[in-house]
This record gives sequence, C-alpha cells and structure tokens, in this order.
Amino acid sequence: MAQKVLIVYAHQSAGSFNAAAKDAAVEVLTAQGCQVEVSDLYAMKFKPSATADDITGQVKDAEHFCYGEETMLAWKEGRLSADITEEQRKLSDADVVIFQFPMYWFTVPAIMKGWIDRVLTKGFAYTSEERYSQGILKEKKAMLSFTTGSLESMFSVNGINGDINVTLWPLQNGILHYCGFKVLAPQIFWAPRVSSEVRCSMLEAWRTRLQGLLGEMPLSFTPSDSFDSERGFQLKKSIEEKQKSEHHGLTVGTHLGMSIPPNSQIKAGV
Amino acid sequence: MAQKVLIVYAHQSAGSFNAAAKDAAVEVLTAQGCQVEVSDLYAMKFKPSATADDITGQVKDAEHFCYGEETMLAWKEGRLSADITEEQRKLSDADVVIFQFPMYWFTVPAIMKGWIDRVLTKGFAYTSEERYSQGILKEKKAMLSFTTGSLESMFSVNGINGDINVTLWPLQNGILHYCGFKVLAPQIFWAPRVSSEVRCSMLEAWRTRLQGLLGEMPLSFTPSDSFDSERGFQLKKSIEEKQKSEHHGLTVGTHLGMSIPPNSQIKAGV
Repeated sequence: MAQKVLIVYAHQSAGSFNAAAKDAAVEVLTAQGCQVEVSDLYAMKFKPSATADDITGQVKDAEHFCYGEETMLAWKEGRLSADITEEQRKLSDADVVIFQFPMYWFTVPAIMKGWIDRVLTKGFAYTSEERYSQGILKEKKAMLSFTTGSLESMFSVNGINGDINVTLWPLQNGILHYCGFKVLAPQIFWAPRVSSEVRCSMLEAWRTRLQGLLGEMPLSFTPSDSFDSERGFQLKKSIEEKQKSEHHGLTVGTHLGMSIPPNSQIKAGV
Repeated sequence: MAQKVLIVYAHQSAGSFNAAAKDAAVEVLTAQGCQVEVSDLYAMKFKPSATADDITGQVKDAEHFCYGEETMLAWKEGRLSADITEEQRKLSDADVVIFQFPMYWFTVPAIMKGWIDRVLTKGFAYTSEERYSQGILKEKKAMLSFTTGSLESMFSVNGINGDINVTLWPLQNGILHYCGFKVLAPQIFWAPRVSSEVRCSMLEAWRTRLQGLLGEMPLSFTPSDSFDSERGFQLKKSIEEKQKSEHHGLTVGTHLGMSIPPNSQIKAGV
C-alpha cells in the first residue's frame, strides 16, 4: 500500500547538504509511489515561540497562562492558530515522519523545536494516559536524519561528547516514543563538511537505505507495561532482573555524568 | 566581590511559578549586592530562528549558506544583528548565568533554544580549540533552573523517563560545559502544579539555596586533557581504567536505550 510521508525540514539554504538529503528522500520515496509532503520550516517562516497567539479567541486563565493546558483546550474546541492546525493535518495524514536537520547544540535547531512545542499538542499527540507504548501516534513511524559538526569518534561511547545514543535519548524517547511513534534508526551524516567525496558517498548510502526504509523494523523500547503506575512509573523488579541478565540498555562511557562535590550542601538534582 | 548575574528567563506569564522563581532569584541575589540583569525572552519577543537576517551586510556564500560559519565571520567583523550583540554584551558582563524555564519536551522551550543557537556564536563562546575545559566562557558559571510536568519518580534511574541526568547531559555537557561554563547543580522544581503548599515550600528551598549559590562548588566533568586529540577525542585508556575502579559516571537504568532488531540490515547510528 502506498504510504504518506511528511518531511519536517530545517535548513536555511537550498544549496545545503541537508537540502540534498531532503531532496533525495522526496525523489526515492515518490518513485516508490509514496505521497511526500515537505514542511520547509525556514521557507515557511515557521513561528517557533509558544505564545498566547497560538490560540484564537479567549484564553481560559490569562493571569496564570499555562501553554500546555490552554492549547489542549483550544485544540479540543478547534481554536488553535491556522499554522498549527495545518501542520497537525499533515501529521494526521502521514504514515511516516522524517525530521531532516543540522544538529545545533546536541539537538534540533530552535525552529524545529518550535514545531515540536507547538504542533504536538496535548490531546492531539498524547495524554497522561496515552503516551509511550500507548501514545496517540502509535500507528505512525518517525525518524531523525541529521548532519553533525563533530566527528563520529567524538560521539562514541568513550568519545568526548559521549555516546550519540545518550544525546538522542531525549529526542527519540522523550519526544518521538513519548507520542507513540515507532522510531526508525537515526540517519546520521557525520561531519559532511569534510569533503565532497564524503558527501557524495553519504548521499548514495542514504538513497540505498531509502529504498528499504518503509520495510525496516523500528527500534524497540521497553514497553510501558514494564513500569508500575502504582509506584511512580518505576521499572518492575522482574523486568529489571531480566534486562540485567541480557545486558540490555545504553552503553555509557565512564566519563559521562557529573560528580557532585562531596562538601556541597546540595543533593544532585534537587 | 559583588557579582553580576544574568537570568535568561522563558515563561509567557508573570503569574507563573517560573516568574516567581525568577523574581526570588532577583530579590535574594540583589540583596547580596549582586547586579542582576534579566532577559525576559517572551516579553522581548526574542527571535528564535537562526537566519541570514542575523547578519548585517553581505553574507559570504549565499548559495551554500552555513549559519555557523557566517555568524562567526559576522561576529569577528562586528556585523551581528543588534539583538544578538546586546545579549552577548550581557553575557560578557555576567559572572553567573541562570536559565529559568519550564521544561518542554525534555529540554528548553524553543524560544530559549533560539537564544542558545543565536547568542553562543562560534568565536564568541567557543572555537574548535577552545571548548569544554578550555571553553572561552570558562571564567563564568551557569545553571539550569526549571519546572517539570513529570513527577520526580518518573525521572529516576529506573523511572519511565530515565535518569534526569541523562536528559540533562546534552544541555549541561553539550552546551554549558562545551562553552567552558562551570556548571552549578540544576535547580529542579518537580511538578509544581500539584499544590500551592508544594509550590510555597519549593520557593522557600530555592530562596535558601540562593543565599549560598555563589559559593557553591560546581559539578565536575572529566577534563578535556583526559581525551586523546590524536585519536578522535577518545577517553585515554589510563583514565578509563581509573574511572571504572571509582564507579565514576552516570547511572543508567537497564531500560534506557533502544534495541536494534537483529534482522535489520542497518547498523545503529549509521
């Protein structure tokens, strides 16, 4: 069955490597019979800031304005701004979403963070009951496709930036999996500014992967029912023991993480 | 000696808990003789998107526009836009920077990501040679102060969201430490929407911490010279062995991380 693909794309220049990666995806997927839509965020001058302007008509509590609560209500009542409604229409139509971007500061650029903050409205993309394995978007797939400035070695387990999978955890688990998306393995273009030969071979590898992309198995996350909702969503002991015996999970270099000075009055994270 | 503090603040409403946390910081630090400046991003209608408009005059290569390279050049030549220049002036003046925000999607809201993307220009905040322990801003301190929607248990090592320190790694290591900032332990206001009693006691604890904040020891990261620049910035074997014996590093729950399906043709991260 032909699938619908949405590419959320954030680069300022049509001459960039990111543009070429996006164009390759459009071409290869269209040739397979997919319907491909592109949200070209800079070209659209997409508004990144989450403000009361995202709601038409009255807000419920102007004095204690809470963006999450107000936009959930506005979504229910059909009072979100036209630009958000249009992106939600594209997302509802899509079977697969590809986020194409240059990594800025270990995550997505602000304009793409704005798309995430404003389009993935509570009620539309998730609720407190419908998240992670039960996330509202669980029939869809999503993936990150991005360029880095750093070399691959720097983002390895013992590299100075730490394992790339730690850096991607908030994006892949905290955003994509949280909404229910089945997450395809990331497409990482390591430091493509190095040379034009490298860029060509990277694009060739991407085109090859795109041929089979829609048939790929997604990454697997620990299912929501492995966590005990009666105990603050902690991993069930039985699952923890099983995972320990299987060496499940992220491999984290010894250097990751911060030491709290022993003479400090404060507790980490408090 | 009196210190200068910059608070980069992102909440839409003056009636919010985040506003109260920001106001408490202004009040307690000012009473200690600090000069406190606040960048109230929503009130300033701060522009989040990284675009060619951030550069006055000609860009070097419009066809292959690269924001990082173009803004580094513009910074050198004094051609960054007035709003960026003003934030860089505030940052240059400051001894301590506090980021005050509600966590959106496991990280900062888009408007604050925009401040990071646009103000921490290459050349001004870091270079390839001056980063991490040698970062340009190494004489300054910085910290994250934020509210969450999730309960603390969900962000614990075995919680469904994973350890909060993993979620903060890209922010604290990849942005703050990368620029050289000494990073103070985060101030985390767990789910303050629960009750007004909880909010009051949280603010009281924050005011108490603020009394001694400027004397706190920062978190410690593995120093840059522990990594071998000749081997792609990998952790030196001798340091790795030492850290292993000390149980150094992040504690990561077994459930963190994604399993790649065994029958997949793809390699993780490629």
